[in-house]
Amino acid sequence: MPRAAATLGLEFIDSDADAGTIELAFTATEAFTNPTGNVLGAFQAAMLYDTVGPALLATLEPDQFQSTLQFNVSFLRPVRPGRLVGRGRVVHRDGDLVFLEASLFDGQGQVIATATATATARVIPLSQAAAAA
Amino acid sequence: MPRAAATLGLEFIDSDADAGTIELAFTATEAFTNPTGNVLGAFQAAMLYDTVGPALLATLEPDQFQSTLQFNVSFLRPVRPGRLVGRGRVVHRDGDLVFLEASLFDGQGQVIATATATATARVIPLSQAAAAA
Repeated sequence: MPRAAATLGLEFIDSDADAGTIELAFTATEAFTNPTGNVLGAFQAAMLYDTVGPALLATLEPDQFQSTLQFNVSFLRPVRPGRLVGRGRVVHRDGDLVFLEASLFDGQGQVIATATATATARVIPLSQAAAAA
Repeated sequence: MPRAAATLGLEFIDSDADAGTIELAFTATEAFTNPTGNVLGAFQAAMLYDTVGPALLATLEPDQFQSTLQFNVSFLRPVRPGRLVGRGRVVHRDGDLVFLEASLFDGQGQVIATATATATARVIPLSQAAAAA
């Protein structure tokens, strides 16, 4: 488990490489909260980043990696600390450019934040992973 | 210091309420890294989120708060753990809608990620902060 993923409490739930979908869980702790006790959007965004990337990674070869170039997050609802679920999807792949989207859900299955349609990524050789943004 | 800000190692450097600018530092630890040892974009995004918000907050009245509705991040360069500097700016305010931007810099002053021109926020009464996204 990568360090950053562990910090976000990432757990693998399910993926379907053919469909290009992935489902993950995260644990939003008190350490991620703003002064009102809600999970700061910063950490909702971090969880969405760590959903779109794995959605693509799950479809790649073992010697490939990916680099997220850009992503856009909309914050829909406040959420308290707890277990959050991220669902990600490969929307379209054209060579080494990929469009991804993801949504983050609270314990009641309500969507709280989305990273939709504007996340793009390059597919790169694993050997170049350290030099990628 | 809010819990989330402390988790990101936030330190206040400087702000200019008239100019609508703020400068903050963050500490990217090993806990934020991907398998190559670089700081995962998720945490670069989190730091940028926690730069645009404070840029606006620094210009508000004590009884006001803000809610970031949407933000867009471009990842320009890889960065290793260490002290990163965030510079944020209020680009334009029209009533309770505000456009913000921020950039994140490494120890050499090189820009590594930006959240430019597409971050928007609502200005809300402090009493409504807990109900805002």
